[in-house]
Amino acid sequence: MNAQPAPFADVRAQDHALAARLFDDVARLSPDVEGVSRPAFSEIETRTLKYLEDVAKAEGLAVWYDAGCNALFSLPEDRDAERFVVVGSHVDSVPFGGNFDGLAGVVAGLICLIRARREGRRFAKPVHVLAMRGEESAWFGPCYIGSKALTGTLAKPEIEARHKGDGRTLEAHMADIGLPVEDIRAGKPLMDVNRIEAYLELHIEQGPLLIGKNIPAAAVSGIRGNIRYRSITCHGEAGHSGAVPKAYRRDPVLAMADLLVRLDESWTTILNKGDDLVLTSGIVATDPEKHAMSRIPDSVSFSLDMRSQKPETLDDMRALLKSEIKEIERDRRVRFELGEELRVEPALCDKGLVAGLEEAMRQVGQEPFVMPSGGGHDAAVFAAAGVPSAMVFVRNRNGSHNPQEAMEIDDFLAGVDILSAFLARAE
Amino acid sequence: MNAQPAPFADVRAQDHALAARLFDDVARLSPDVEGVSRPAFSEIETRTLKYLEDVAKAEGLAVWYDAGCNALFSLPEDRDAERFVVVGSHVDSVPFGGNFDGLAGVVAGLICLIRARREGRRFAKPVHVLAMRGEESAWFGPCYIGSKALTGTLAKPEIEARHKGDGRTLEAHMADIGLPVEDIRAGKPLMDVNRIEAYLELHIEQGPLLIGKNIPAAAVSGIRGNIRYRSITCHGEAGHSGAVPKAYRRDPVLAMADLLVRLDESWTTILNKGDDLVLTSGIVATDPEKHAMSRIPDSVSFSLDMRSQKPETLDDMRALLKSEIKEIERDRRVRFELGEELRVEPALCDKGLVAGLEEAMRQVGQEPFVMPSGGGHDAAVFAAAGVPSAMVFVRNRNGSHNPQEAMEIDDFLAGVDILSAFLARAE
Repeated sequence: MNAQPAPFADVRAQDHALAARLFDDVARLSPDVEGVSRPAFSEIETRTLKYLEDVAKAEGLAVWYDAGCNALFSLPEDRDAERFVVVGSHVDSVPFGGNFDGLAGVVAGLICLIRARREGRRFAKPVHVLAMRGEESAWFGPCYIGSKALTGTLAKPEIEARHKGDGRTLEAHMADIGLPVEDIRAGKPLMDVNRIEAYLELHIEQGPLLIGKNIPAAAVSGIRGNIRYRSITCHGEAGHSGAVPKAYRRDPVLAMADLLVRLDESWTTILNKGDDLVLTSGIVATDPEKHAMSRIPDSVSFSLDMRSQKPETLDDMRALLKSEIKEIERDRRVRFELGEELRVEPALCDKGLVAGLEEAMRQVGQEPFVMPSGGGHDAAVFAAAGVPSAMVFVRNRNGSHNPQEAMEIDDFLAGVDILSAFLARAE
Repeated sequence: MNAQPAPFADVRAQDHALAARLFDDVARLSPDVEGVSRPAFSEIETRTLKYLEDVAKAEGLAVWYDAGCNALFSLPEDRDAERFVVVGSHVDSVPFGGNFDGLAGVVAGLICLIRARREGRRFAKPVHVLAMRGEESAWFGPCYIGSKALTGTLAKPEIEARHKGDGRTLEAHMADIGLPVEDIRAGKPLMDVNRIEAYLELHIEQGPLLIGKNIPAAAVSGIRGNIRYRSITCHGEAGHSGAVPKAYRRDPVLAMADLLVRLDESWTTILNKGDDLVLTSGIVATDPEKHAMSRIPDSVSFSLDMRSQKPETLDDMRALLKSEIKEIERDRRVRFELGEELRVEPALCDKGLVAGLEEAMRQVGQEPFVMPSGGGHDAAVFAAAGVPSAMVFVRNRNGSHNPQEAMEIDDFLAGVDILSAFLARAE
């Protein structure tokens, strides 16, 4: 190891090569028909952690596993620190996913450690890099499984959720790889969160904002919470498309369209007031067993996903949804069935940490930029557990959860620079 | 046969029993898992015609088949008339259909003949009852196949359409039962339409208007034409439901909702002007392979069926559709693909015949009521071939094309009375 700082260009080239190698090697461990698949609590996930362990050990880092079978990395001297900053993310992916969602945050943490180790530097506060399992909801249904288990907040129905592929419970899959399922079931935290000074997570942006604004990386102000309905059904009355006059119709498709347009208009109003909101109906379907071009359908089903950084905005949208539905039900003589409502509270990032990240941006020569996170992240679980948390977003084309995820390594290193500068000076 | 008119109650009870028996017997010939199935150009259809032939012969009627293998019935003395009124309808049904759509018109014609025969009456003009094959589009795709073959208007792609079940062409099925496929292919009419004085068809109403207005039967003013799009696709851009701000979205579902609401509003305007229109989007679907609650879909597909008695209204709606699409494409940065446009021209019923039916209603003690037909019927094909045509609708609950079709025999006989009075006096 060379303890003398290398010329900047060399260090950059070294980091670039290292990051590219780590991403490529892990992708090669987890290929699928299209993109990569790293199932939560699987052998492939274990193999990924093992690969990172080998890389870290070769760089002289300390490596160990916690009770949740997640891998931890640190400078050898920080291994047993009483209090520490966690730089965390997850190594699992969605099926046929991209390689960067989750993995980028773990590799970022590792590169911060490797840089410090190579340069003989220490951090302002000890740093533990946490490579977690099981963040994606695609495998079992619940999300943030790894971090919820660590913080003792995995609910019983979540533990009993069944794998979309093999139908076995999450608990069974956890037991397979040695997690203490009794403790998890009892809601016993697998780590002492009071020892964590702060939780930092670097993640690819899942939207197009940084591409649009031509900014390589940003600090995150907070993680949008959401109210979601997997399947709202609007019930009307079937009839012949040509034979039923308008006054006799109870058309569920037009009622749904009416509702969506009303919500879309309120969305604009809320943005104009300066509040935060996104709204999506991602699934829409009449019944394929019955629907026909010349038949007024008896019902239509659709999903609704409303997200905001402000709990009050979510409350307002929920109230608005119900009042618009009431009006449409009366006017169009249909009936809406909302089905189960899922709610996740918004998680605000710690103001001090965000300010520190903005300062770190200035330090590395980037104009500070702060934006909300639309997707949920493990950071929200740590924030909910009382750990001051913050995130760094890296510019990324084509969204996430698909093989077309396209993060440039240079943008990734811009994010790592911010994280690294933050950890060096931490408040 | 009793040539003396029987007391009214007796005749009514006799007609009631006869109609019920004919409907029940035919239903028993064509049961399916649910409702009845009488496929177009099938053995079951042939068996149905044969059954009606036996009933008619037992009543002393003349029975013969035309070149289209349709059955014809008349008083023996009218068999060879140079010119005649046709009372027609079809005996096929949709799969899992109701028993009355089509069959009611044939049974109505037969009962008119049987009544006249039993009472020793003649009609003002000779009457031929025509029991046609193949009206429903459910089996091969094209509709009014039997009447189009008779009038020489079955198009080549229609003759080559494939059966939804066995995949064999319509032509092959026609050849099986002896239709002259060469003539049909050449567009040679199988009958001389110039010999037809008028075409009359009794049919169950396929909508709820007569139920709503508490009227047993009505004359039809015309058959709505239509412009239909089996699958309009709106293309937007996929993205994470939480991570893409409104300004960056190209949401196809909201664009579709916007379009449907605009069309719905114009519909109201058109009705307020006193014009005729119905509008339906019966099929709506995001891609089940890709859609998810937390994903802005890249596209959505939907059908659109617009019907009116006025060709100008159809033209206006088509122009409106295109201009609204243009505006939404610009505002929401999406792209609509209309796909194939199907158009059927409205068919106006003959004014003289409609007036005659109104007069017949008065004669049997019913307040005249005239309404449009939303569904298409063989009557439209005869009208298009230059034959003065008209229809009688009979009140019916639950629409058509389903096993829940519910026509009361008393309402049916009210329709038969109107038809019968009309044929006795015809202008």
